[in-house]
Amino acid sequence: MEDETGRLDQTVVGNKDAPNRLSPAAERLRYILGDDEETMPTPTLFTEMDTLQQEGDELEWKESARWVKFEEKVEEGGERWSKPHVSTLSLHSLFELRTCLQTGTVLLDLEGYSLPQIVDDIIERQIEEGLIGPELRDKISFVLLRKHRHQTKKPIHRSLADLGKSGSGVTRSPARSPAAGANFNRSIEDLRSKQAANYGRLRLAQSRSMNDIADTPSTDQLKNKFMKKIPRDAEASNVLVGEVDFLEKPFVAFVRLSQATTLGGLTEVPVPTRFLFVLLGPLGKAKSYNEIGRAIATLMVDDLFSDVAYKARDREDLIAGIDEFLDEVIVLPPGEWDPKIRIEPPKKIPSADQRKSVFNLNELGQMNGTAGGGGPVSEDEEMPVPHELGEELAYTGRFCGGLFLDIKRKLPWYPSDFYEGFHIQSISAVLFIYLGCITNAITFGGLLGDATDNYQLSSFLFCLFSGQPLIILSSTGPILIFEKLLYEFSKNNGIDYMELRLWIGIHSCVQCLFLVAMDASYIIKYMTRFTEEGFSSLISFIFISDAIKKMVGSFKYYPINTDFKPDYVTAYKCECLAPDTSKSILGIEHVTSEMLNITALDWTQLSKKECVKYGGSLVGKSCKYVPDLALMSFILFFGTYTMTVTLKKFKFSRYFPTKPTRADRGWFVMPFGKNPWWVYLASFVPALLVTILIFMDQQISAVIVNRKENKLKKGCGYHLDLIWVGFLMAACSFMGLPWYVAATVISIAHIDSLKMESESSAPGEQPQFLGVREQRLTGILVFVLTGVSIFLAPILQFIPMPVLYGVFLYMGVASLSGIQFWDRIKLIMMPAKHQPDFSYLRHVPLRRVHLFTLLQIVCLAVLWILKSTFLAIIFPVMILGLMVIRKMLDMVFSQHDLAWLDDILPEKEKKKKEDEKKNTKKEKKKEQLCAPPKPPPPSLVPLTLYP
Amino acid sequence: MEDETGRLDQTVVGNKDAPNRLSPAAERLRYILGDDEETMPTPTLFTEMDTLQQEGDELEWKESARWVKFEEKVEEGGERWSKPHVSTLSLHSLFELRTCLQTGTVLLDLEGYSLPQIVDDIIERQIEEGLIGPELRDKISFVLLRKHRHQTKKPIHRSLADLGKSGSGVTRSPARSPAAGANFNRSIEDLRSKQAANYGRLRLAQSRSMNDIADTPSTDQLKNKFMKKIPRDAEASNVLVGEVDFLEKPFVAFVRLSQATTLGGLTEVPVPTRFLFVLLGPLGKAKSYNEIGRAIATLMVDDLFSDVAYKARDREDLIAGIDEFLDEVIVLPPGEWDPKIRIEPPKKIPSADQRKSVFNLNELGQMNGTAGGGGPVSEDEEMPVPHELGEELAYTGRFCGGLFLDIKRKLPWYPSDFYEGFHIQSISAVLFIYLGCITNAITFGGLLGDATDNYQLSSFLFCLFSGQPLIILSSTGPILIFEKLLYEFSKNNGIDYMELRLWIGIHSCVQCLFLVAMDASYIIKYMTRFTEEGFSSLISFIFISDAIKKMVGSFKYYPINTDFKPDYVTAYKCECLAPDTSKSILGIEHVTSEMLNITALDWTQLSKKECVKYGGSLVGKSCKYVPDLALMSFILFFGTYTMTVTLKKFKFSRYFPTKPTRADRGWFVMPFGKNPWWVYLASFVPALLVTILIFMDQQISAVIVNRKENKLKKGCGYHLDLIWVGFLMAACSFMGLPWYVAATVISIAHIDSLKMESESSAPGEQPQFLGVREQRLTGILVFVLTGVSIFLAPILQFIPMPVLYGVFLYMGVASLSGIQFWDRIKLIMMPAKHQPDFSYLRHVPLRRVHLFTLLQIVCLAVLWILKSTFLAIIFPVMILGLMVIRKMLDMVFSQHDLAWLDDILPEKEKKKKEDEKKNTKKEKKKEQLCAPPKPPPPSLVPLTLYP
Repeated sequence: MEDETGRLDQTVVGNKDAPNRLSPAAERLRYILGDDEETMPTPTLFTEMDTLQQEGDELEWKESARWVKFEEKVEEGGERWSKPHVSTLSLHSLFELRTCLQTGTVLLDLEGYSLPQIVDDIIERQIEEGLIGPELRDKISFVLLRKHRHQTKKPIHRSLADLGKSGSGVTRSPARSPAAGANFNRSIEDLRSKQAANYGRLRLAQSRSMNDIADTPSTDQLKNKFMKKIPRDAEASNVLVGEVDFLEKPFVAFVRLSQATTLGGLTEVPVPTRFLFVLLGPLGKAKSYNEIGRAIATLMVDDLFSDVAYKARDREDLIAGIDEFLDEVIVLPPGEWDPKIRIEPPKKIPSADQRKSVFNLNELGQMNGTAGGGGPVSEDEEMPVPHELGEELAYTGRFCGGLFLDIKRKLPWYPSDFYEGFHIQSISAVLFIYLGCITNAITFGGLLGDATDNYQLSSFLFCLFSGQPLIILSSTGPILIFEKLLYEFSKNNGIDYMELRLWIGIHSCVQCLFLVAMDASYIIKYMTRFTEEGFSSLISFIFISDAIKKMVGSFKYYPINTDFKPDYVTAYKCECLAPDTSKSILGIEHVTSEMLNITALDWTQLSKKECVKYGGSLVGKSCKYVPDLALMSFILFFGTYTMTVTLKKFKFSRYFPTKPTRADRGWFVMPFGKNPWWVYLASFVPALLVTILIFMDQQISAVIVNRKENKLKKGCGYHLDLIWVGFLMAACSFMGLPWYVAATVISIAHIDSLKMESESSAPGEQPQFLGVREQRLTGILVFVLTGVSIFLAPILQFIPMPVLYGVFLYMGVASLSGIQFWDRIKLIMMPAKHQPDFSYLRHVPLRRVHLFTLLQIVCLAVLWILKSTFLAIIFPVMILGLMVIRKMLDMVFSQHDLAWLDDILPEKEKKKKEDEKKNTKKEKKKEQLCAPPKPPPPSLVPLTLYP
Repeated sequence: MEDETGRLDQTVVGNKDAPNRLSPAAERLRYILGDDEETMPTPTLFTEMDTLQQEGDELEWKESARWVKFEEKVEEGGERWSKPHVSTLSLHSLFELRTCLQTGTVLLDLEGYSLPQIVDDIIERQIEEGLIGPELRDKISFVLLRKHRHQTKKPIHRSLADLGKSGSGVTRSPARSPAAGANFNRSIEDLRSKQAANYGRLRLAQSRSMNDIADTPSTDQLKNKFMKKIPRDAEASNVLVGEVDFLEKPFVAFVRLSQATTLGGLTEVPVPTRFLFVLLGPLGKAKSYNEIGRAIATLMVDDLFSDVAYKARDREDLIAGIDEFLDEVIVLPPGEWDPKIRIEPPKKIPSADQRKSVFNLNELGQMNGTAGGGGPVSEDEEMPVPHELGEELAYTGRFCGGLFLDIKRKLPWYPSDFYEGFHIQSISAVLFIYLGCITNAITFGGLLGDATDNYQLSSFLFCLFSGQPLIILSSTGPILIFEKLLYEFSKNNGIDYMELRLWIGIHSCVQCLFLVAMDASYIIKYMTRFTEEGFSSLISFIFISDAIKKMVGSFKYYPINTDFKPDYVTAYKCECLAPDTSKSILGIEHVTSEMLNITALDWTQLSKKECVKYGGSLVGKSCKYVPDLALMSFILFFGTYTMTVTLKKFKFSRYFPTKPTRADRGWFVMPFGKNPWWVYLASFVPALLVTILIFMDQQISAVIVNRKENKLKKGCGYHLDLIWVGFLMAACSFMGLPWYVAATVISIAHIDSLKMESESSAPGEQPQFLGVREQRLTGILVFVLTGVSIFLAPILQFIPMPVLYGVFLYMGVASLSGIQFWDRIKLIMMPAKHQPDFSYLRHVPLRRVHLFTLLQIVCLAVLWILKSTFLAIIFPVMILGLMVIRKMLDMVFSQHDLAWLDDILPEKEKKKKEDEKKNTKKEKKKEQLCAPPKPPPPSLVPLTLYP
């Protein structure tokens, strides 16, 4: 033992003679781990810890905790599994474990086919090594072969049957279940005498029948649903700890089997066992044994140590594994943390690969920062992930170069775009997006009649042939605002709107084709978060203000009589009075056929409309009021909103249609005849505005959809999509229907509903986001369904409008909530103490953050005001203006601040990279020149301060 | 160095030769800490860590973190303080710190009056010890005397002025502020050349003027508001770490001054410095130095280590302190935790006293469980705090014994009950409770007129003379339900209600006096959480159902015409038609004076009431409908409710009165004359019911108010209060006014609004709850205000009733939410995986929890049903029945389960204690008899497994 501790001294505490090299521990690990990178990865380990218990007169092993990645403990009294939590260990138990492994028996690659044989081998070895006397053979064997009781979840019918059962063991007799929550009366003495009785029986039995463990897994084990949480290739490691009365010093064994073997009822789940750790010791230290058991179990599920355990050649390799683990642990001061608190698994865990790379000589230099220091203070230096747009947006300089590349890039994926759509998840995605599309269509255009057919058709085409089929086309707010402005403009100037619109559409289509041909989409590189968020905030505000305006409108449309007094109900009426006969004949001359009947009319029986129609006048206090409707609308509006907020999704909402389209419109708009010839040419100018708007709206949505965090794999198709939008634009103009572009909110919802996550993750572990089910099928189906919606009209009709407005209010508010800009606005009103720990607040002074926010607010306010004036028509140009303003911000803010608050503009980034390169070169050069007393490469072991 | 590490081996890792004693480290600490328990407690330490930075051409010390209890870091880029967090250290840095202290200079009790002198002394000692050459004297001194820049919060006007200032240093030149967030371009070389220039200047200066630090604290320091967070007696410890180019190996010094001294601009706040830790080292390891600095800083604020630091006699004592700290640290596995996550301070921290008690020989045995094991598994054995009621409820067996004791107990506090009320907090408490009382009064009785006077007077008297002046009297739900039942009973049986009520009041008063005389209040010991929660759930349900009933009622009272169609507004009217003259003369014979005018009436001009009065008939479709009112009520009702939920307090609500009292009632109720004589005697029986009800209602509220967690110091007065309730009962009966008892919800609100918390707590630390401001003044003022409320009637009138109902709905729902019963009901519908980590779930099997909940639901359902039948009149007895049922639960559930889900009934507890005593004795006896090979007492050092 003397020299063992001596070695610890060298490896963990000091490293006097080899300051410039890896520590011996790391050196060992590098040898066994680092070299064979091509070998198979080691299987995942499932670890189960069982403790020895006295149940009635029987000794048995009771499962007390398990680990897939995090610890789950059996709540003794509660008879249930705890929530998964981070295993907090005491440094103490880790050191004790280290000594256990140094002094106990270590059997590596033991040929084991059954538990009794393995136990025999362990005991034999211990007797050989003189660690125990031969007289203990039977006793230890008896204890180790006791039955294992697992904490399994009972099926519902069984737990219902148990409902009346008299509680935990405690009720019967406290001495019976020593480990149950409240064994206040249990004495060690009691256990001791019981155990003596057991060994007495043992002497009577004198045979192998003392083996309680079944050879094959029980049905409980096979049916255990927890199996789903364990990866398929997993192997088990079993930890057995307990106190017995016949030992004077601990009996410790660490076994690795040459082949993973299912050892009957040993493990909760039918997973073959590879590792076995046994710790039996004298009475009175159960808690200590437990902690050591937890320590080895935690080590076994550690990515690095489990590799070591699989590849260890001898005891020393295992010890080196522990030392390496110790070198990386994080320590909480005892005065600042209560060890009883269970720590929830973090959202992000450092990757095992990074930890393993320590042993890769090439990457050694990179790790110094975390372990032994090295370089200047570098903790917080990680910059935010730059705004990457990929090579799809590179300027090719060739005619249609980008488009050609887009097609080339997307074509190979085309078949998979269909067969990958066959998945159960697609159904919910289709339903969800269908509802979203209908809502959108109702607000911004119209669902019923020919509009739907057309919408369906264009979107269908887009889904079939576009570059980014996850994008959903729809009428969007900015486009409709522009159309409204255009309509007013043409009305005021006596120009036929539909024809003008058609020409704008044609021009715009041509312009889009031109933009595609020129690879113009590359300029979206300059759209940073500033522009994106400005644009989408504007859309959100339009949603919110429209919803509220419409709501307020219903109070105007159905006015409330605020002076109403129930007692004076007799005073409220609305009578239709017949007009003076002389006047009425004149007034209603065109109703010739009915003229004769007028005088014969019973005027009091007429409805309001009829009364007005026949020229009667409505007289009375109640004429201008409509009771209850406004308030009911309000209740529905806010009710829907709050309900939707509560449900956080609007899957339950249904919608109610309006009549959209104008009655005096034909199926096709004729291009000539209604306007003077110069209008056809002049419409080039408004078309330019429309093109800008469509370009911005489409591409901003596309950029958001293609964001790196969505992990899209099939590439982008900015140019390809733009050409389709252009074509559809012309088509829609001919049909006199709304123009469609990518709808940001719905497209994001589409992506969200198609996200794939890793299925089996360890309890407590965050599921891994794998990517998005990229295919065309869902989009196509959505538009088939939309087509069918026409037949639903009679049903949809019964759903009141205010419900719809409530949904819009929700959509507006919800899309604001995801925006950093909005977070920053809230910061302005918050004292610094209560501000959330946003990463940019760690790196940018608060006053700069506020300044940035204020500038953004001013920009938006200006946009909003312009939108309401005659300048509204150049609204699209103003959005381009946002990009110009962003460019100017480079002069106000440092690139560092902008990197955190926004994104860095491309040239700057390029320049910065060049600068960096230059600097690095310079540094290297200088280092070579003037650093002859080269500081030693900091090693991984402690005490590197004293070379 | 050889032997130093050798010592570590003995203390931390192994303890071969002294297994039965404390480790040498603990032994040392016991010597310096354990013995002098009577000495002054050591001051709190404020620790500041400054790192060496290059700012422009200047070297300076920049504050990088500070500790009061938890760590606050300077966010370099953000120019702000981080939130307080637990200091996560690497085991690594702790070991390196240990070596630093072993090899560096340790100066204890240095006489220091200024920083230059202290620096001189340190350097002198290092030269003496041969650690540095004399040629480094000036360079080190120059570096250590550079100016200190602190991270202070700027006043608002200054930060506004800074708004436009160009960001963090990074923008100007990356090399200028090496530690700023993004110093990607900074090269060590740069720093090196700058430093060389500095030392060059130094050679020119050649004098003491190289001292940058002011002798006295600056105004920034003096004005620093952070001072408030630091205890008055605090002293500072300063940690200085940095890298310099002229050192080949680290320069380490740990200094304790004999007197805490303000060292000019050294510390952020004008707190005198006691400790100084300096670590200067060669270039390239800044991160390592930083971590070591954080380690010593964390140690300095550790309760135990700071004691050691104050009392250490030599270097070895400090090392022992570190070893002891290491022995207690909690370790997080590297694969399960990301060290970058900042851990928020926990709600509960282990107390320092418990940790220090390790060194007290008497308590040594108790600590073994946590460190070295010992005894059976004991981790979760702590039982819930038992339901303690204190000696106030002991049965004295003497006539009025309890009452006498109550008075004796309360009298000495009487003066303080008044002068302790003068505190700013009382004002908000008075306003808050005033609003609560008025609400309650309006629902359950009436605010306006004589009722208020009386209510005010009785509550005033109660506040003035009662035993528990924090209790607020009011009419409560159960009492009013009983009164309602009584009223119906007497009406059906032709008995005069007011007289009966008076007699009941008189009887009940006498019965209360009898109960007081007999010390009957002691039976509330048997009221456990089961009864309390059953009773208060019932009250909550009554609140909720009443609120909803009243709301639904308004739809009946103001019916809505659901068939209304705006177009047919002409068809809706309500006309008053004159009656047939023959009938009308007969019908309205009593309106003699107006009879002549009837025929002359313009019937169409009459209001609804007038029409009915004069015998007209209302004809028309709109007669039975009242537009808008019901919906408006609904909006106000739910609006108020949701608003109140949002605000989580109802400080903003105002109320609207009803007319309470019956018109045909006089000021006093006469006791005789209206009922036969036997009623006076028979009213004894209902009086008994009332007494039970009042007793339960009053005492359950009192028990809740006196709960241990409220930390009341002035004792209870159950008997005294009951006698007052009895007297007021009789008085109210004479006045014909509602009976008043303790109102649970309002009394709890009263206590909540008077809670005292510790003012200065370390950043991140939870404020300590000190107790409740126990006094009579707030209660008295509330009722003075209530008296004044009469004059507010004209204003209160404008507040609509539905708002009030909304508040009740809130109060009902809110009081449910604090009840464990309600939590358990929610558990039934929750899959086990998502259930919160309630402590009883850890200890009681889920099916038992559900069974308990189901039984409770059944009890409540039965109560609710009975309440609605003719049995309602024995309602109070049913509440007593709850206690009987609880007694019966002892047969269904184990005491262990009940201890977690409810409380243990008194006899059982007593018996249990006796059992325990017996067991302990037995254990001891046996231990002495049959444990000759006594296991060694587990020591605190590791490796105790191998004696």
